Amino acid sequence: MTVTTQTPETLSSQKTRLLARQNTITNTAGYSGTNLQANLLILPEKYSQDFHNLCLRNPVACPLLGISSIPGNPHKISPTPCIRNSDFDIRTDCPAYRVYKHGKCIAANKRDLLDLWSTNDDEQQSSENYTAFLLGCSYSFEAALCNATPPLTPRHQVTNILVPMYRTSLPLSPAGIFTNTTCTVSMRPYHESEVERVRDITRPYLATHGEPIAWGWDAVKRLGIRDIHDPDFGDKVEFGEGEVPVFWACGVTPQMAVEAAGEKIDGLVFAHEPGHMLVTDWVVEDLERLKEGIAAFRAKI
Amino acid sequence: MTVTTQTPETLSSQKTRLLARQNTITNTAGYSGTNLQANLLILPEKYSQDFHNLCLRNPVACPLLGISSIPGNPHKISPTPCIRNSDFDIRTDCPAYRVYKHGKCIAANKRDLLDLWSTNDDEQQSSENYTAFLLGCSYSFEAALCNATPPLTPRHQVTNILVPMYRTSLPLSPAGIFTNTTCTVSMRPYHESEVERVRDITRPYLATHGEPIAWGWDAVKRLGIRDIHDPDFGDKVEFGEGEVPVFWACGVTPQMAVEAAGEKIDGLVFAHEPGHMLVTDWVVEDLERLKEGIAAFRAKI
Repeated sequence: MTVTTQTPETLSSQKTRLLARQNTITNTAGYSGTNLQANLLILPEKYSQDFHNLCLRNPVACPLLGISSIPGNPHKISPTPCIRNSDFDIRTDCPAYRVYKHGKCIAANKRDLLDLWSTNDDEQQSSENYTAFLLGCSYSFEAALCNATPPLTPRHQVTNILVPMYRTSLPLSPAGIFTNTTCTVSMRPYHESEVERVRDITRPYLATHGEPIAWGWDAVKRLGIRDIHDPDFGDKVEFGEGEVPVFWACGVTPQMAVEAAGEKIDGLVFAHEPGHMLVTDWVVEDLERLKEGIAAFRAKI
Repeated sequence: MTVTTQTPETLSSQKTRLLARQNTITNTAGYSGTNLQANLLILPEKYSQDFHNLCLRNPVACPLLGISSIPGNPHKISPTPCIRNSDFDIRTDCPAYRVYKHGKCIAANKRDLLDLWSTNDDEQQSSENYTAFLLGCSYSFEAALCNATPPLTPRHQVTNILVPMYRTSLPLSPAGIFTNTTCTVSMRPYHESEVERVRDITRPYLATHGEPIAWGWDAVKRLGIRDIHDPDFGDKVEFGEGEVPVFWACGVTPQMAVEAAGEKIDGLVFAHEPGHMLVTDWVVEDLERLKEGIAAFRAKI
């Protein structure tokens, strides 16, 4: 008899989602290493068209990995390769959730959404008709940076802190109720001589923010960043000799869009708890086709 | 025998392209009314991946309607519904062309590109391997504004001048060699009370720039526009009482990206002569599906 020890890294995406459902895991970093993890945003159906347009118009900050197949149904995601198991439930399969009302976070670290999003089990249709959006996160391109030769491991991974994130003055293209939204960026310091390699390596990962949107010390002012040494989210990192800040569009942006919409959203909005992502069935090899958006996959359904 | 008088408006897209090939028409405005007209940009294959990424990352300014199916082959465009006739030739089927070298326009109003882009007729492969990109233009949403009830006819159409266009400080998401590119915008004045209707009407036309990216007098400064009364391209328009400027991303942006790339592009770049567009076989009804990009159509090929 062979005894196999499964590490979080080698767990199947479906098994990681099952652990999330059972609330036996928290932060998903390092789980199901070859699978893409997703930021989650769930809105009442009446705002879903506007939010979908926001994603289509701003794919660098809001890259779509999947959408509810049927509004109100928490079990089915389109395109189908994104989530394959039929017992999937988006209300439980993230380790933890946040709840927003009128643009403000009113609950955090919720284990599931079953009390807030009820469905009629027979028809598998929700009374609320919520629509879920799954958005790419930077996990995949960070793995590519770590695996480069020589490695370009992001500083926050070396020092085991959270990546620093900043609000910017860079406007997103508005879409319906989503106006006055600005892009949030994550920052990783690199030596000036490494910037072109960093750009080349992250370029193919368009579905997970792709190549940097700006770099260098002059970009700090250009992006309207208040203080590079005092991030708005995450932790502060130190710069070495000759290093410059390199900025990527960040998956916090969609939540900022919901905050900016504020009172314009009547009803609840749900999101994942930061770091507690939804692990999808997409694998790194799917990223090349995801580059052109999920439309190619959806067309086959 | 019935005698039918064909107006430019009712000509089929294929017939308009034939007239363009014969150089018997110039400006395509008003031709083949139900068909989408395209901005054209043709680059050496080695830069096509970067330019494709630029379009995918900035779909509001650079919405893709079609791409060369095979680099170097001037006869085939993907997806196939974009151009259907097999005798199509992208080197002749625009009424007039411009030629760029190192980011500068070195020739204008050229009747065709046959002397600059040669192909081996047997293999239908070019010695140069140029790749063509067809990009959406604002023609379609302008028709929708004219047809609104009550009409929201753009001012420049009423006064029969060119739409005013401005350079902005709004950065495009960079892609490979295409860095330091900013968005060019077109401007149409509307009364403040009309802005939400204008937004609603143009919203679905995502493949032809979609809803405005900014509006109101405070947007002039925010976009870094030098002087609203002195456009960088096109003609000046007057503002009436209570009217504000409304800005859309503009199809001149891709040519500005080529100018910004400058010396980084080794070889010739071709574009359409402004106003002398490529008339495609896409029709207004295709715009809803084009919203998610051309990937859905390309997946079926």
